[in-house]
Amino acid sequence: MRFLANSWYAAAWSKELTFGPFARRIAEQPIVMYRSSSGKPVALLDRCPHRFAPLSKGRVNADNIACGYHGLTFAPSGACVHNPFSTTIPAKAKVRSFPTVEAHTLLWIWMGAQEAADPDLIPDLSIFTQPESWRPASGYTRVRAHYELVVDNLMDLSHAEYLHPGNLGPGNLAAGEFTVNQNGDAIEFVLASKGTTAPPMFDAMSPSDRRPVDFTVSGRWDAPGIIQLQSTTEFTGPPRREHVTFKGVHIVVPETEMSSHYFYSGLRNLHLHDENLQQAIEQGLFKAFSTEDEPMVVGVQSRMTDLDLFALNPVLLPMDGAAIRVRRRMKRLIAEENAAGSPKQTLPAVGA
Amino acid sequence: MRFLANSWYAAAWSKELTFGPFARRIAEQPIVMYRSSSGKPVALLDRCPHRFAPLSKGRVNADNIACGYHGLTFAPSGACVHNPFSTTIPAKAKVRSFPTVEAHTLLWIWMGAQEAADPDLIPDLSIFTQPESWRPASGYTRVRAHYELVVDNLMDLSHAEYLHPGNLGPGNLAAGEFTVNQNGDAIEFVLASKGTTAPPMFDAMSPSDRRPVDFTVSGRWDAPGIIQLQSTTEFTGPPRREHVTFKGVHIVVPETEMSSHYFYSGLRNLHLHDENLQQAIEQGLFKAFSTEDEPMVVGVQSRMTDLDLFALNPVLLPMDGAAIRVRRRMKRLIAEENAAGSPKQTLPAVGA
Amino acid sequence: MRFLANSWYAAAWSKELTFGPFARRIAEQPIVMYRSSSGKPVALLDRCPHRFAPLSKGRVNADNIACGYHGLTFAPSGACVHNPFSTTIPAKAKVRSFPTVEAHTLLWIWMGAQEAADPDLIPDLSIFTQPESWRPASGYTRVRAHYELVVDNLMDLSHAEYLHPGNLGPGNLAAGEFTVNQNGDAIEFVLASKGTTAPPMFDAMSPSDRRPVDFTVSGRWDAPGIIQLQSTTEFTGPPRREHVTFKGVHIVVPETEMSSHYFYSGLRNLHLHDENLQQAIEQGLFKAFSTEDEPMVVGVQSRMTDLDLFALNPVLLPMDGAAIRVRRRMKRLIAEENAAGSPKQTLPAVGA
Repeated sequence: MRFLANSWYAAAWSKELTFGPFARRIAEQPIVMYRSSSGKPVALLDRCPHRFAPLSKGRVNADNIACGYHGLTFAPSGACVHNPFSTTIPAKAKVRSFPTVEAHTLLWIWMGAQEAADPDLIPDLSIFTQPESWRPASGYTRVRAHYELVVDNLMDLSHAEYLHPGNLGPGNLAAGEFTVNQNGDAIEFVLASKGTTAPPMFDAMSPSDRRPVDFTVSGRWDAPGIIQLQSTTEFTGPPRREHVTFKGVHIVVPETEMSSHYFYSGLRNLHLHDENLQQAIEQGLFKAFSTEDEPMVVGVQSRMTDLDLFALNPVLLPMDGAAIRVRRRMKRLIAEENAAGSPKQTLPAVGA
Repeated sequence: MRFLANSWYAAAWSKELTFGPFARRIAEQPIVMYRSSSGKPVALLDRCPHRFAPLSKGRVNADNIACGYHGLTFAPSGACVHNPFSTTIPAKAKVRSFPTVEAHTLLWIWMGAQEAADPDLIPDLSIFTQPESWRPASGYTRVRAHYELVVDNLMDLSHAEYLHPGNLGPGNLAAGEFTVNQNGDAIEFVLASKGTTAPPMFDAMSPSDRRPVDFTVSGRWDAPGIIQLQSTTEFTGPPRREHVTFKGVHIVVPETEMSSHYFYSGLRNLHLHDENLQQAIEQGLFKAFSTEDEPMVVGVQSRMTDLDLFALNPVLLPMDGAAIRVRRRMKRLIAEENAAGSPKQTLPAVGA
Repeated sequence: MRFLANSWYAAAWSKELTFGPFARRIAEQPIVMYRSSSGKPVALLDRCPHRFAPLSKGRVNADNIACGYHGLTFAPSGACVHNPFSTTIPAKAKVRSFPTVEAHTLLWIWMGAQEAADPDLIPDLSIFTQPESWRPASGYTRVRAHYELVVDNLMDLSHAEYLHPGNLGPGNLAAGEFTVNQNGDAIEFVLASKGTTAPPMFDAMSPSDRRPVDFTVSGRWDAPGIIQLQSTTEFTGPPRREHVTFKGVHIVVPETEMSSHYFYSGLRNLHLHDENLQQAIEQGLFKAFSTEDEPMVVGVQSRMTDLDLFALNPVLLPMDGAAIRVRRRMKRLIAEENAAGSPKQTLPAVGA
């Protein structure tokens, strides 16, 4: 198995799914999503078991979805509930249904065994629903590279100094102090740089007047690709005081072996209702993640061809420590899942 | 052999071949066609035996075609008749010539053993040359899917209710009565729906004023991909009387394993000279076949990846009966041809 | 090994490399080039040994290039000279450096063993730096075909009659006299056609008023893909006298197995400062090489699929003699190199 199956994957921002149908490939599987009449999200394998038409080319009909080719209609459970050709429904006329939960302004889908789909395993991203405290600027970009390369990117933020100097990068990050910590299955890091300058985006939130700041960013990775960040700048003083705190939530989801979905967000706790600032941050994040990180990660993928990172014998530096631990942890989690005989992640036989 | 070799394939509508050269790939083979000085069509392997230039980049010179790279010139037989470099012609300087016949406003090409190319085997589509009785509206679309998926589409017309409601689909088709019949190597079907409404395109030919009609469509498939249809609407009366009869000729030809040529035509026997109606029908058929069927069939292909239909264990419904018999018949015809040691369909050695 | 390693390859026209970085794939290897502060060209494997980012996405900093991802900085030797994360530099933090020489208005790169990189092996193309005698009109085109097919094209110039009648093709070339000669590792040919007409481009340089000319072109190939040509038209007289002499330098370089870099130039020794003539020749050469040869060679490649020429059993004509000798010579040179255990041309392990 190439991806973790027993895991909640972000399939979409809530707002992406209006009524439906909405098609997206997750971990190689074609998925169709729609909202039932009550608004509850539904996720099915996007393939009619009759003639294999994409159900996403069909029509949502109250709680159900009708195939656009020959009209077989499926309920949220995946059961066929209407066969236009007969009053009987063939026993194997069903489509795989994926547990799905709407939480924290995202739609989550469980790709593994149904009975293991515990909503409590969804990471707590309630920061997305605290509008009086935190204002998110969110986006989505598709990256034509293996999702682990995007995770690598986020677990070594020293790249911001080189790749994002115009928006997210403070100076002198690479010379900062870097610590990594394992916390259960999570991997945490802290990167602290003393006496640097605030990133341009931080200046836009609160001018630093180029006074020296200490920059600290801490991060936490949860499997398979959820990275929560907190960056703080502090004036070195005197008096020493906080300048800006900026949080980030980054969710990286495999689409295929060579492409990923990247849901990103930056959250601020000041000037919450300043719409010009909001727009500036949205543009800055789009620039950083879609026009700077994406081409770089795609370039890395092209140079690695389809080889594994370790097979290529990389020169590892101290700040790779967090990303390397993540890769090892993922390898172990997948190996454990395979050993436990979890359901195969490959395209299932129809109706199975 | 993946395709039937000993078979006439439609290579083009007659009007597509003006003078030439005209290139089209048929059953994986690159073919160049042109008209000799008398207008007779010629079909050759589109590959000069010298340096393998596409002959379709050359020039037609009276009855012959000269390679555009170094000038070797070939007669309709495939024999080299001019070698600019010498008065002698190398013995192996010949290119495979394919028997070709112009009939029923189409150009037919025989992909198998030359001696077996009997023009009497070309299906009788003389309806195309009865302008006082039947007016065709014809088109061509390339479909990025295996040709059998396009044939499937035509052998189960219940999909018209779901995929073509705005032009070709009557209501209630799926609940109709469906019968399949084997007639020699041909497969025939009848689909009859009582008390439904006329398809919009039929209304355009003759308004039904939304009176209930009985809709009957009968079809006949001949190998490898010729489907002749006749659809009739009758007012249920009283008095019971015919409303519209519309014929269809659909010819599906493999281009590669994953793409096909689709020649389609709808023929009416009323308002033969109404050019507005003609244009409306042409647009309606284009919409149905190029913008509704094509994306659906391509979607099906993508969901099937490159697997065989039966390997995917489909849920089969009664109205799949005709398409399934066609698939089984094709499999048998190809197996018989292989058993008989017919010429290989793979790209032949040069000059062989 | 699919390409000759111990060989100077033209990587770019000098003028293509301003400051840098400049990325081009040579013989499957991604290369980044830049100029050091003194203007000297540098060529490195375009892949940082840390996280495999393309160094061509980085920044040139005086003599060195800094990776745009995490800032590791490399000297022209390929040694890492700055590690932003530490005062120590990991022993294996180096990137392969390729010997490179600027000569004859071209940048040459040596893809084989460093110690074998002898600049004296660069072919003498000093004609490019004789502005008082020869005025070049040069260009570059990428050809989506194996480089040997482009070399074939240049070693049998009889194709000019058929493919370039409007600019480079004299009449009656195919009937000319053709001789081939082996000169050490070089292959030479002469193609002489009596009493023909001057090519249109020659007429543009010096009107022939359609008087008959003898046309002679001699060529010399040096491994792996350098072809020097000299074409002369002479009035058959009386009095017999030279009409035009036009030289050509063509350099064909493998990019991948299925694509090549084609550097071409035509050089005249009259009207050296006529800029209208210069522009006309540039346009004529672009038309011939980029819009006539390129599609033809690509068509040939498509018809050959990925098979070797000899495997396809071509009909060989006398004028293939030079090209065939080139192919055999290349095969022997590569076999000899492999037998000698030269460094593998495949992508090397990082830091190796």
